[in-house]
Amino acid sequence: MSNLQYVLEILGTLFFAISGVLAVRDHNADLFGATFTGFVTAIGGGTLRDIMLGSYPLTWISDILFLYAIMLGALVAYLFFKSLVRLSRTFLFFDALGISFFTILGVEKALSLGMRPEVAAIMGMFSAVMGGVIRDTLINETPVLFRKEIYATACLGGAVLYLILNHFGLDRDVNLIISSAFIFVIRLVAVKFKLALPNFKR
Amino acid sequence: MSNLQYVLEILGTLFFAISGVLAVRDHNADLFGATFTGFVTAIGGGTLRDIMLGSYPLTWISDILFLYAIMLGALVAYLFFKSLVRLSRTFLFFDALGISFFTILGVEKALSLGMRPEVAAIMGMFSAVMGGVIRDTLINETPVLFRKEIYATACLGGAVLYLILNHFGLDRDVNLIISSAFIFVIRLVAVKFKLALPNFKR
Amino acid sequence: MSNLQYVLEILGTLFFAISGVLAVRDHNADLFGATFTGFVTAIGGGTLRDIMLGSYPLTWISDILFLYAIMLGALVAYLFFKSLVRLSRTFLFFDALGISFFTILGVEKALSLGMRPEVAAIMGMFSAVMGGVIRDTLINETPVLFRKEIYATACLGGAVLYLILNHFGLDRDVNLIISSAFIFVIRLVAVKFKLALPNFKR
Repeated sequence: MSNLQYVLEILGTLFFAISGVLAVRDHNADLFGATFTGFVTAIGGGTLRDIMLGSYPLTWISDILFLYAIMLGALVAYLFFKSLVRLSRTFLFFDALGISFFTILGVEKALSLGMRPEVAAIMGMFSAVMGGVIRDTLINETPVLFRKEIYATACLGGAVLYLILNHFGLDRDVNLIISSAFIFVIRLVAVKFKLALPNFKR
Repeated sequence: MSNLQYVLEILGTLFFAISGVLAVRDHNADLFGATFTGFVTAIGGGTLRDIMLGSYPLTWISDILFLYAIMLGALVAYLFFKSLVRLSRTFLFFDALGISFFTILGVEKALSLGMRPEVAAIMGMFSAVMGGVIRDTLINETPVLFRKEIYATACLGGAVLYLILNHFGLDRDVNLIISSAFIFVIRLVAVKFKLALPNFKR
Repeated sequence: MSNLQYVLEILGTLFFAISGVLAVRDHNADLFGATFTGFVTAIGGGTLRDIMLGSYPLTWISDILFLYAIMLGALVAYLFFKSLVRLSRTFLFFDALGISFFTILGVEKALSLGMRPEVAAIMGMFSAVMGGVIRDTLINETPVLFRKEIYATACLGGAVLYLILNHFGLDRDVNLIISSAFIFVIRLVAVKFKLALPNFKR
């Protein structure tokens, strides 16, 4: 794992923890419930990815820094809760950063374990969105996946972009930044302009 | 794994994918959300079974045909969505086919890994119903398990039938067909005549 | 594993099965749905713990006594359903016993697999609360975690107490009893006096 990969995985974990704590804003959670939600959001996607790949020990178990990143994220969310929630886009911002990093890191991990590109793309998307799906299931909201603006589609698009650029031999760290940025921009543009795929119910 | 087992596992996966896409008919999902639901429904039960058994790599990861079967199932569900939904029993039909095959295949897999019959029966039922439970949790519906007509009970019954016939030395492929058919018929008869176990709340 | 550990793990499983069956009291579940809920509640936390730790085979798969304990728990819950439900605290009582044992047993298992204390504490809490979280998700209720009185916090507190006493060399079986009792008392006192952490929504 390159230094850049490591730093982004820690940052993505921290961002997801923040988004998880902020997610309880409309719910009657106590401090502990909020922290728990932040924790599960932060580790959910990566844990599911590692379990499906049979890759042990799990990332957050093998490296205590991930736990500290989650605690730091939760602390930041507590301290600046009112300001963070008032800026209504904050939650979306941290969530978008989290899914961008986690998608590509998930793709890279699956590839490094010898998975086919199709499986790697799905694993990347799973890593990114499953933490949020578990978070939303916990707090009884419709999973973010089913809400209006392009979400998991952006992750899948970024994963495919990474695989194509990787196929043409682009440096992995450069590719990681480009493909993550692609997801992040698509996601924010989708939220800004309320872009959505056609509704399935015709 | 015999050829028959393989074909039925692919078919069951395809049927579950169709049932998953059809399940979003009353929900505001976009094309991607519908596909995602189909995917999770198709792989959910088998993935949970393999993870619980510690059997790696997961079936859908080791054999790319499963992914293609899911995509084909999703495509069929899109193309014929209106007609499939209008025939109100279609969803139940594909779901019933899926649970019938998956129950017995799950029992067989657990037995082949040296599990006791009791554990094999539970694994068979889990393989069959958990994809649907995850699907229903995702779309915020009461899990199919808790709805009126006999469902998981049929799977458990079929699993026990398979174990008994297996005990008496019946050919595995013949047994697979008989026990799957048993589940399928029980399930359709239960839906048709609204058969249910006694309600627990007395 | 000491005899005491083994007995408490069996008892905890039985208590969780009872609590799972009682949990469907306000829901339209048939006998099978109630048993299924009891089963998932009983194995959920330990299964998730073992999968996260990569510890195979799962406890309930390797030792058939766990399945029998669950069936016995379900049977007790059926037979005495009316009386158990009428005593409105019964559900809380069995649930509190379950989480007390499972927390400390989870901590011990994680330590025995060489995990750091921080990870062991989280694994203990997960073992204890995740069965209930899955149960509540299945029956579409707000997870017990987010309800008023101190719950997972008590588990985490007991886990930390165990780790401290363990650090000072206390006998493991004595420590197991003291720390489990600590969780049980905290939980019952919290319910009795409606003690809660400050609500996060300020």
